[in-house]
Amino acid sequence: MIVIMERRATEDEIQNVVARVEELGFRAHLSRGEERTIIGIIGDERPLSVEALEVLDGVERVVPVLHPFKLASRDFKPDKTIITVGDVKIGGDEIVVMAGPCAVESREQIFETAWAVKEAGAKILRGGAFKPRTSPYTFQGLGVPALELLGEVSETVGLPVVSEVMAASDIEAVSKHVDILQIGARNMQNYSLLQEVGKTTKPVLLKRGMSSTIHEWLMSAEYILSNRNYNVILCERGIRTFETATRFTLDINAVAVARQLTHLPIIVDPSHATGKANLVAAAAKAAVAAGADGLIIEVHPNPDRALSDGAQSIRPESFQKLMVELRQLAAAVGRCM
Amino acid sequence: MIVIMERRATEDEIQNVVARVEELGFRAHLSRGEERTIIGIIGDERPLSVEALEVLDGVERVVPVLHPFKLASRDFKPDKTIITVGDVKIGGDEIVVMAGPCAVESREQIFETAWAVKEAGAKILRGGAFKPRTSPYTFQGLGVPALELLGEVSETVGLPVVSEVMAASDIEAVSKHVDILQIGARNMQNYSLLQEVGKTTKPVLLKRGMSSTIHEWLMSAEYILSNRNYNVILCERGIRTFETATRFTLDINAVAVARQLTHLPIIVDPSHATGKANLVAAAAKAAVAAGADGLIIEVHPNPDRALSDGAQSIRPESFQKLMVELRQLAAAVGRCM
Amino acid sequence: MIVIMERRATEDEIQNVVARVEELGFRAHLSRGEERTIIGIIGDERPLSVEALEVLDGVERVVPVLHPFKLASRDFKPDKTIITVGDVKIGGDEIVVMAGPCAVESREQIFETAWAVKEAGAKILRGGAFKPRTSPYTFQGLGVPALELLGEVSETVGLPVVSEVMAASDIEAVSKHVDILQIGARNMQNYSLLQEVGKTTKPVLLKRGMSSTIHEWLMSAEYILSNRNYNVILCERGIRTFETATRFTLDINAVAVARQLTHLPIIVDPSHATGKANLVAAAAKAAVAAGADGLIIEVHPNPDRALSDGAQSIRPESFQKLMVELRQLAAAVGRCM
Amino acid sequence: MIVIMERRATEDEIQNVVARVEELGFRAHLSRGEERTIIGIIGDERPLSVEALEVLDGVERVVPVLHPFKLASRDFKPDKTIITVGDVKIGGDEIVVMAGPCAVESREQIFETAWAVKEAGAKILRGGAFKPRTSPYTFQGLGVPALELLGEVSETVGLPVVSEVMAASDIEAVSKHVDILQIGARNMQNYSLLQEVGKTTKPVLLKRGMSSTIHEWLMSAEYILSNRNYNVILCERGIRTFETATRFTLDINAVAVARQLTHLPIIVDPSHATGKANLVAAAAKAAVAAGADGLIIEVHPNPDRALSDGAQSIRPESFQKLMVELRQLAAAVGRCM
Repeated sequence: MIVIMERRATEDEIQNVVARVEELGFRAHLSRGEERTIIGIIGDERPLSVEALEVLDGVERVVPVLHPFKLASRDFKPDKTIITVGDVKIGGDEIVVMAGPCAVESREQIFETAWAVKEAGAKILRGGAFKPRTSPYTFQGLGVPALELLGEVSETVGLPVVSEVMAASDIEAVSKHVDILQIGARNMQNYSLLQEVGKTTKPVLLKRGMSSTIHEWLMSAEYILSNRNYNVILCERGIRTFETATRFTLDINAVAVARQLTHLPIIVDPSHATGKANLVAAAAKAAVAAGADGLIIEVHPNPDRALSDGAQSIRPESFQKLMVELRQLAAAVGRCM
Repeated sequence: MIVIMERRATEDEIQNVVARVEELGFRAHLSRGEERTIIGIIGDERPLSVEALEVLDGVERVVPVLHPFKLASRDFKPDKTIITVGDVKIGGDEIVVMAGPCAVESREQIFETAWAVKEAGAKILRGGAFKPRTSPYTFQGLGVPALELLGEVSETVGLPVVSEVMAASDIEAVSKHVDILQIGARNMQNYSLLQEVGKTTKPVLLKRGMSSTIHEWLMSAEYILSNRNYNVILCERGIRTFETATRFTLDINAVAVARQLTHLPIIVDPSHATGKANLVAAAAKAAVAAGADGLIIEVHPNPDRALSDGAQSIRPESFQKLMVELRQLAAAVGRCM
Repeated sequence: MIVIMERRATEDEIQNVVARVEELGFRAHLSRGEERTIIGIIGDERPLSVEALEVLDGVERVVPVLHPFKLASRDFKPDKTIITVGDVKIGGDEIVVMAGPCAVESREQIFETAWAVKEAGAKILRGGAFKPRTSPYTFQGLGVPALELLGEVSETVGLPVVSEVMAASDIEAVSKHVDILQIGARNMQNYSLLQEVGKTTKPVLLKRGMSSTIHEWLMSAEYILSNRNYNVILCERGIRTFETATRFTLDINAVAVARQLTHLPIIVDPSHATGKANLVAAAAKAAVAAGADGLIIEVHPNPDRALSDGAQSIRPESFQKLMVELRQLAAAVGRCM
Repeated sequence: MIVIMERRATEDEIQNVVARVEELGFRAHLSRGEERTIIGIIGDERPLSVEALEVLDGVERVVPVLHPFKLASRDFKPDKTIITVGDVKIGGDEIVVMAGPCAVESREQIFETAWAVKEAGAKILRGGAFKPRTSPYTFQGLGVPALELLGEVSETVGLPVVSEVMAASDIEAVSKHVDILQIGARNMQNYSLLQEVGKTTKPVLLKRGMSSTIHEWLMSAEYILSNRNYNVILCERGIRTFETATRFTLDINAVAVARQLTHLPIIVDPSHATGKANLVAAAAKAAVAAGADGLIIEVHPNPDRALSDGAQSIRPESFQKLMVELRQLAAAVGRCM
């Protein structure tokens, strides 16, 4: 860390910061400029919080030098992590598409969708059993029966399954039937839950919080990694901005930024990132062109009857057409699909 | 709800929307303008989601007419709710100040702070036992021992206590020692947790999520209320914006807006809403002037040794001075303290 | 427009709104629901402002039905507009790349860059003569001598030129040497300037304001169009959000959204939208995949000596490599380059 | 500035940065940590842009040490600036209220309002002659006739006048009739205009851009100050955020932050910062409590007939009541009114 002292900081205040730095087990390195004195801190700063020094008298600002994440960083592991789920490899040359309905609604619906997305080339089936809904008065998911259906459809159709876990108490049940545990955007900083999924051996799909910085997102991954679950897939799903024409703003820059910072696979959710079925294709293509390792797309056989997220779900026919276009794009950027 | 059809919507598409509306148990009311046809939906729209209609062919946009929250609304309960905790009434004429350290760190620290804030006029003690921290490598709170200390200090000093609950599995332990359960900003949309605290009888302090709209905040309150816990205190604690000079942006407008929409008490957290000790006083005063029912302020006897949030904690002396100033302000806006 | 009355609105208040609507020359259409009365307004609402009705007693909310822009809308002109600049067609099948330095710095620099970008396939040369800089103490552009150089290089190299105009008083000088007038993001709502460029016959490149909604952007285009200059090219260049890892957040969704709303060509500026040279390629590819009609990219022969925007400028070698990759992508999405 | 090198930066890259720093006329100071090398730059960094160094190979990040503004800073001028307009002093102990209609609409309207706000205690009259409107199809202000009316009413009623200037070509006409030149939020980064008003001797009311940081706002003040007009009044008027319940989000923290950074007077516009008449009083009170030097409030004798901004204008009766309440608040925070 670097401590920038106030213009009017006294010699006593400077020495006090130095003393505190040394007391905390670091070495201090002074640089006296014309207008400000700067104190560099030598040592691994990660366990140190900016605030611990910001609070001292005479300090104007404290600037971290290192990224606060370690296990998630490229510094720690330069090579890309490839996560294997059944026969599928996420993070390699192949762009992996996960698809399926927002929520499991019935045996018929999930089977029909599973067969359709598999035929179109999806490699993983998505489907919610527990749904985080803004309103307590709307459909909250079928719960355990949905998990059982997912397990069954997965085996029959031959697609691994990803589904959201909303509470620590559900991890066991979800793990029993599902291949990838999803942490939703609203739970990205539910640290209790992150620690619990970090103790499992299942791959975790970690959605970015709608107002979380890329650094915070990687810190949430770090919670999982530091509990010894190293299989984290990052998912950009749109951030909240002032623009209201779309439900969220797809932060397409985040794909390339995260790629530089971390070795973990990065996928994109064009359905939530737009909120509108007729924008999903453009967002999905942009994600592939920007270097995403995969996509997670909401597909519903009958969006106008969907119990949740119908407006952003595309039909199987549209999905099939999109997959053809994505395959051409993937080839154009040197990836396969 | 109001459905606005596309300019080029066909008669068939219009009739299809009408049919769907009626199938869902509502009546439809058509209004054909020069450029657009509008379909009004008659009936209690709250269980209906905007998406269910947005997805239909020929629909341009769907506009909700009613607020999605019911139990939290002024329509449902016109008079302000007053919540009683021990001898303290929150939501009445008195402006209630809650104060204490970010986290309980030691017996000495919490006792010293409790006596100091009580003497200055605080009515409720705050102190964290479980701390949501961005980094897994920093202090996470003392846990249960902190709860026991809080119970002890509360009894000795004679102040009710508010403390955060981060996981459903902690509710029982926290409830045993604490008078008000706090739901932190990062858990505002942790619906599992909201439902669980909704099943208790303890008052709940519900912090606004850093990127949650006022409507979403009230919907999270609705989750608690609809589980039959009617004692919800709302807390504005700053939202995330592009401005980086402060940690968060205190949304002072939210106090008056929420006041119009809901009967629930509304307090403000000037410590998190600024992130800097030297801005806390201005923010606290603004909150009282804007009509807040109370404040929750971080006070630490020794901020430069604080294990968390030191930079935004004020010293007992500053707190005492601030309380004197707030008392004058309260009187000037017709409140007492 | 649709007027939603308050739950407790009286019959008098309702009738007063109706009377006011009719006084303003519209017809009113009442729909009485169980909880709210809705008043639809029949007639071309565009000259009417939401506020004129919002202010009336008993009104809860006013919802516009039509988009506020007319000449810029697809309703007005369903087919895409193609703008011709010399031999170049913007808005057709070809993806048009504009490239060059942030600012013209010297004869040598602009000639070297022009030849390089032309060889790589750029169709239009960019280069600033007047630079809007946050600080009054940094390089503000060479002014008129830069314009003269642009005119000269354009003729010699055979590329049309785009350059920013910052003040009405500069329009004449800029128009003399430049083929496309650029309105920068900071001037997107400088209505005086919009009206003045609207009175010229030069194509206008209208950058989106960093915190402007897509609707406001189209309204700014409407200012130009309504002054009878129909040659407006829209340019998405990143919006301001809470994310600080990049200078701005490229709103990639905006390309597809604007495409649905307007017939005007839409290009993307990946240099400003990221602020970092090593992110430009990913953003440029995403833009092409999402359907942009073109790109405007900062290229500098020696970024580490650039007088402005060096950090986001790419070298001619990188640009050439990027152009090869973009050409493959363009083909994959059915466009040419 | 401080240059943070990448973890893998080579010795050559480090030496190259040092060489460049020295070539630019500064001294470099190296600090080699365990994971990163840091290079401190000694000398007045203000004319240096971050980008000039960020662009060099091996550089991870560049952190400015000094604020980029100089004349606007407390470092340059520790004491608060007091600006005198007629008998009114802005920036002293008195809280100065400016009030009047959004736009001058008629002789009757402006005279009636002027008398009313003067009687209630306003010290300066506001009224727009040139109006920046989002739509080219709505009322744009009366122009020069409005300026003449303002001059007349100012003399008759005895109140100085503030009015917006939208274009350099209007400065002369506005200056003839008006005492304070207002730069609107949308023109905060219209640097040509800032330079032109900087060459006048009239006080300038500089509104903060809706998405401008506090630093950028002060840099825009710097443009005016560096042209030798030292009479700049800053005006916080709400920023754009994700919250849509209010038109803008009043950044109340900005008052105290700007106070620490600059000696210039700071006022607040509660009308634009809320966009709703029934929220103006709460916002105005918050501003006074937070330490603002004044307020600018929209008052209209007949808001439901206002040609612009009716929804956020309060009636003279409400204004009079508010002024009584504000006077009590001012006293409670040690100010007069």
